[in-house]
Amino acid sequence: MSLTPTRDDKFSFGLWTVGYNGTDPFGGPTRPALDVVHAVERLSELGAYGLTFHDDDLFAFGSSEAERETQINRLRGALADTGLIVPMVTTNLFSAPVFKDGGFTSNDRRVRRFALRKVLRNVDLAAELGAKTFVMWGGREGAEYDSAKDVRQALERYREAVNLLGDYVTDRGYDMRFAIEPKPNEPRGDILLPTLGHALAFIESLERPELVGVNPEVGHEQMAGLNFAAGIAQALYHGKLYHIDLNGQRGIKYDQDLVFGHGDLHNAFALVDLLENGGPGGVPAYNGPRHFDYKPSRTEDESGVWDSAAANMRTYLLLKERAAAFRADPEVQAALEASKVGELAVPTLNPGESYETLLSDRSAFEEFDADAYFGGRGFGFVRLQQLATEHLLGAR
Amino acid sequence: MSLTPTRDDKFSFGLWTVGYNGTDPFGGPTRPALDVVHAVERLSELGAYGLTFHDDDLFAFGSSEAERETQINRLRGALADTGLIVPMVTTNLFSAPVFKDGGFTSNDRRVRRFALRKVLRNVDLAAELGAKTFVMWGGREGAEYDSAKDVRQALERYREAVNLLGDYVTDRGYDMRFAIEPKPNEPRGDILLPTLGHALAFIESLERPELVGVNPEVGHEQMAGLNFAAGIAQALYHGKLYHIDLNGQRGIKYDQDLVFGHGDLHNAFALVDLLENGGPGGVPAYNGPRHFDYKPSRTEDESGVWDSAAANMRTYLLLKERAAAFRADPEVQAALEASKVGELAVPTLNPGESYETLLSDRSAFEEFDADAYFGGRGFGFVRLQQLATEHLLGAR
Amino acid sequence: MSLTPTRDDKFSFGLWTVGYNGTDPFGGPTRPALDVVHAVERLSELGAYGLTFHDDDLFAFGSSEAERETQINRLRGALADTGLIVPMVTTNLFSAPVFKDGGFTSNDRRVRRFALRKVLRNVDLAAELGAKTFVMWGGREGAEYDSAKDVRQALERYREAVNLLGDYVTDRGYDMRFAIEPKPNEPRGDILLPTLGHALAFIESLERPELVGVNPEVGHEQMAGLNFAAGIAQALYHGKLYHIDLNGQRGIKYDQDLVFGHGDLHNAFALVDLLENGGPGGVPAYNGPRHFDYKPSRTEDESGVWDSAAANMRTYLLLKERAAAFRADPEVQAALEASKVGELAVPTLNPGESYETLLSDRSAFEEFDADAYFGGRGFGFVRLQQLATEHLLGAR
Amino acid sequence: MSLTPTRDDKFSFGLWTVGYNGTDPFGGPTRPALDVVHAVERLSELGAYGLTFHDDDLFAFGSSEAERETQINRLRGALADTGLIVPMVTTNLFSAPVFKDGGFTSNDRRVRRFALRKVLRNVDLAAELGAKTFVMWGGREGAEYDSAKDVRQALERYREAVNLLGDYVTDRGYDMRFAIEPKPNEPRGDILLPTLGHALAFIESLERPELVGVNPEVGHEQMAGLNFAAGIAQALYHGKLYHIDLNGQRGIKYDQDLVFGHGDLHNAFALVDLLENGGPGGVPAYNGPRHFDYKPSRTEDESGVWDSAAANMRTYLLLKERAAAFRADPEVQAALEASKVGELAVPTLNPGESYETLLSDRSAFEEFDADAYFGGRGFGFVRLQQLATEHLLGAR
Repeated sequence: MSLTPTRDDKFSFGLWTVGYNGTDPFGGPTRPALDVVHAVERLSELGAYGLTFHDDDLFAFGSSEAERETQINRLRGALADTGLIVPMVTTNLFSAPVFKDGGFTSNDRRVRRFALRKVLRNVDLAAELGAKTFVMWGGREGAEYDSAKDVRQALERYREAVNLLGDYVTDRGYDMRFAIEPKPNEPRGDILLPTLGHALAFIESLERPELVGVNPEVGHEQMAGLNFAAGIAQALYHGKLYHIDLNGQRGIKYDQDLVFGHGDLHNAFALVDLLENGGPGGVPAYNGPRHFDYKPSRTEDESGVWDSAAANMRTYLLLKERAAAFRADPEVQAALEASKVGELAVPTLNPGESYETLLSDRSAFEEFDADAYFGGRGFGFVRLQQLATEHLLGAR
Repeated sequence: MSLTPTRDDKFSFGLWTVGYNGTDPFGGPTRPALDVVHAVERLSELGAYGLTFHDDDLFAFGSSEAERETQINRLRGALADTGLIVPMVTTNLFSAPVFKDGGFTSNDRRVRRFALRKVLRNVDLAAELGAKTFVMWGGREGAEYDSAKDVRQALERYREAVNLLGDYVTDRGYDMRFAIEPKPNEPRGDILLPTLGHALAFIESLERPELVGVNPEVGHEQMAGLNFAAGIAQALYHGKLYHIDLNGQRGIKYDQDLVFGHGDLHNAFALVDLLENGGPGGVPAYNGPRHFDYKPSRTEDESGVWDSAAANMRTYLLLKERAAAFRADPEVQAALEASKVGELAVPTLNPGESYETLLSDRSAFEEFDADAYFGGRGFGFVRLQQLATEHLLGAR
Repeated sequence: MSLTPTRDDKFSFGLWTVGYNGTDPFGGPTRPALDVVHAVERLSELGAYGLTFHDDDLFAFGSSEAERETQINRLRGALADTGLIVPMVTTNLFSAPVFKDGGFTSNDRRVRRFALRKVLRNVDLAAELGAKTFVMWGGREGAEYDSAKDVRQALERYREAVNLLGDYVTDRGYDMRFAIEPKPNEPRGDILLPTLGHALAFIESLERPELVGVNPEVGHEQMAGLNFAAGIAQALYHGKLYHIDLNGQRGIKYDQDLVFGHGDLHNAFALVDLLENGGPGGVPAYNGPRHFDYKPSRTEDESGVWDSAAANMRTYLLLKERAAAFRADPEVQAALEASKVGELAVPTLNPGESYETLLSDRSAFEEFDADAYFGGRGFGFVRLQQLATEHLLGAR
Repeated sequence: MSLTPTRDDKFSFGLWTVGYNGTDPFGGPTRPALDVVHAVERLSELGAYGLTFHDDDLFAFGSSEAERETQINRLRGALADTGLIVPMVTTNLFSAPVFKDGGFTSNDRRVRRFALRKVLRNVDLAAELGAKTFVMWGGREGAEYDSAKDVRQALERYREAVNLLGDYVTDRGYDMRFAIEPKPNEPRGDILLPTLGHALAFIESLERPELVGVNPEVGHEQMAGLNFAAGIAQALYHGKLYHIDLNGQRGIKYDQDLVFGHGDLHNAFALVDLLENGGPGGVPAYNGPRHFDYKPSRTEDESGVWDSAAANMRTYLLLKERAAAFRADPEVQAALEASKVGELAVPTLNPGESYETLLSDRSAFEEFDADAYFGGRGFGFVRLQQLATEHLLGAR
């Protein structure tokens, strides 16, 4: 297994990631703007296969038609020159002052109409560039104060917007699906659809649920203290992992957007194992882009930007290697067996069994020895975790 | 509005709440066991209308048939004597050693079969006692270590179990619905269906989704840093608030189970406003039991137990009074108008408008003055929050 | 008690608070710059007594000598016109790119020397303006990555810097003390001296510890899940509460800087009770400025800025009123007595008692009835908390 | 470097760790009690050098004199047979009902006197067994409700107690130091001295501060979202790391007490590097016991208990190996140089330089090129972190 990224690895980066200028709540830029052509060229050299962007990354909010076209054409040229693709485009309904109370769910109806128009225009651009996924992060859809937002109406307006987008791409014949990106908070005190669970539930209420999935981000779920790999497993269970954002986060705090693997390493290992091996399933669970949505630290100059981009990919490939070795190790396989991990795939009911049959099975209840689980029938989970830890550490 | 609880307020308590003996991870009981008859009598005197319980609260795990019957009969007698009802029953698949890796999703298939049998038996009891809701908190359905649990298979086993329960109550003709209670962690490192969002998404995958809703608990959502009132609004949006657990929690830490209102007071106010007034909707959003799932602090003796039970109800009624005054205040109404809170209920599209019409509306985009939102068109949310704060403080 | 702020209430505001332009990690300004003269005039009208500022708030980093003087003179004029004072000045070692790895503890020694010079100059300005407190928030003193920062050396460099400042103000004869403001994270992944506890410990290592105290901020301690009022009590215990930053925070997340009282209301009540009444002590515990370090929400225009400034003061005065009523209520006094709150002020040893005497007191151990605490001797804490809650709600 | 533990590694375990019976807030024991003799024998076989205990671990609270002596003698015998030592003893002022509001700081003075007596007796036992450190975890010293505890008086009572203990061991001539173990919450809502910073500050207020240091626990600091390795560095800076508790925690939640390395792996690596290599200092920073304070998961039977005990030690040794390789790698050394990590050890002032000299150094300010840090002078921290990550993963 190689640690050098290739196009087949499907690594993609947001233009806003390598292009992050270092601004944060307590300081302005530490780096100048990064030109999109330069970004495409460097990412291509490093082995990425795709670039993604928000409309406002490529051409500033309020650009003239000419400025917009110039930038789009420069991007097209760079893609043609390098062979990079645009697998995903996303929309910015959060930076401009007009969106200070959100886009699709702003209390101000005029803003909502403007937001819809801005997104429709960007969907057209995404289609033109061949993007198969359109990500929507509703970072400003939320509130700081409970009485300031009627959450049920906000969900209804969000639904109205996504339904309209579904009609639009269907009628236009675009080969494109939507992916909602959840986040619990920041920049709003509380954001609508705060976790992938909330987003999955919302999607089921849509008119065209098949067009909409989720784009979970490592750090966003971890900001709620949730297990990211477990959340991804649920998204996969519902057939809704349409895209994924990889990065690093160190616990419940502000959104850090570190390099993938520079946060919770155990969970990163479990995640790669799930995506690549399907966990114990043994079958890859995800075939889409491995998209890095991270920020090169503000302390870095441009060389640090590219070092950090490369680090994301290298760590992913290292974890992929570790996960393959973990699954191949006979001692791990024996430990999984001892822990009955595979037994969970066996239905609880016998083939054809109903509750009536179960109720008449005395071995299941009346004669079942529940006491044997006191002081016995240990699951061996700690040993299994130690094996995983040692594989992660490259010690086996 | 009275601050003295009556049956019409639909206040209910878990037997395990007033019956909590003070045990925690660092100390044993500080109070003796509480007899169920005594509990029913005292709760009745305090103004509650209902008692709820886990099977193992009423009769210890492993009780003989006779012990079980004795306790059930004692409860029946107390209910008859007082007029209290049992609006909900719940199941314990977490305390006994046999459930150390969970019930419905234990890696051990024999345990899963035993768990199903235990629950079916308890569903029968719930039906006999007239409970309309059967709550399932899967506190042990989870893992500490990622490789120890195949989350997709765990969801599939959970689904198998709930589908079977749905068949069972349907066939038996029980007038009963299920409510899943989410929790992010504790006692497991990560619990399956960690938030109400994840539970709502899961429910949509069931064979009889109409039979299953959620039973969110204040503290459980707040342990993930989530806004409880906003979560309840989403549950209501999906028509899935089948039951609710009220208590108090002070931030992201262990499960505190404080008295309702002794945690996040702003959010408690917003919650009561939502349940009683529908928030800005003006229509009560929930008619079920106001169920307190709290623990009298370990420092208290029995008098503290009943003081704390009364405190839950009194605080709820105080917040109900405050919320009514908030909604009735003309200054609040003007502030809500200024903040365009009601405008969010107006569809973004005009009646009959399609995306084509929207695309041709130049006022929505080409002629829209986005710049006006810089330095202007403020939403007035802070003023609104201050009005809410002053109503909460009883200062208006 | 009046709810209209007066100079005697000692309310002060940072220029950067009302002057916050709305920039956050996901969006640029939503409000234009606020002129310092206008800020002083409006704050004066609202009843504040003081304005505070960072050097870079008043004149941009890199200003010419003339620009700097102009701004200082404009401020002086406004102070003279209104009677406002400058009780505190603070320093900005975090916004400019040069401080991207910190000021006093940057790995780059040239930066550290520059930082010292910048601070010395600002200390002179503070002294000229009559500020009695010089606050230092080391928001960039920290790291994202453990191997990038030698924490022990960072503490040694911090110590070197503060020692030098202590020499400087002593030699210059300035009537000024320093106050260190702790914060656990943001903008750095981990910040040096993350809590007030860490800062207090560090201060004891200085050459002139008497010159240095802490300036704790509500939200900063709460971002670590810590009880702010309890932390303030410890700072008071050590005689080190030299200044205080009041605002609101809703749990462990990014730094929200909400209006005071718009966060954890119970703890705000306890804090005001401690500052004004000394808690159960009955003696005011703090006489310095009540300084608001908050941000008017990004959704607001200028009218929202002043509404929010007024809200901070009004909520403080409301809580002061509530706390006075709480302490005056005979039922509360009886409940405090029952909870033995005052008994904690009685030394555990008798007057003159040594461990020898204690060892010979059989009533203390051999004959002590520890069993009486099972099922008895409850502390009545929940009842006390309910009384506090009802006072907070204005319901008593 | 060997991965097989030896006595020279100074690994010690609490009797309550391997002896944990699986009880948690939602379930009773899953394992029978573990006999102390068996524990000593097994730990000896696994390579540990020490056993530690609370008084109540060895003999139940309320034991008769004879029961107490029997258990002490059994322990002595096992120590003699195996060569294990008792490097530390600790005290239980939290489990029995009498301590429901704490020991040294209970509102009830009689309880405080009883607590002092219990501890004095246990200090005698610790001295008899040759323990050099006496740990005090004040898990019940705290409150759920702000008005229930006068924190300043609680600190004063804590101080009274520790001063008395200092007198006692001094007069008795015991070669023993005290170590305070901080924790932010659980089992109390908020615990006194919530972080190691707060404890360090408190220690400076004691009459004999030299006798008292800290015993920080990985999980306890991480429950407040704090960087454990950074905290340990501050404890070392103040010369106060008298003992250490190693385990694993996965973020801000209930106290997990996982195996060391099964939590935050990056920080565990940094910690071992600090303890063993002094971080960049290159000199071991700590020579005391490597004490594991963890809990074998409730899912395990006895074989899982010993597997988990062994896992703690093996992971520590693996990380020690990784840290040594990290420090020895020339590429790492070059990266540290580029990041100026060592430059932080150079004083900011020149030898003999005063603020006067600094003020006259125009290169430090007037001629300093602060602009060069925009777009340049990157610190290379991400590259350094990637090198650390690859060493941690055993990939270099």
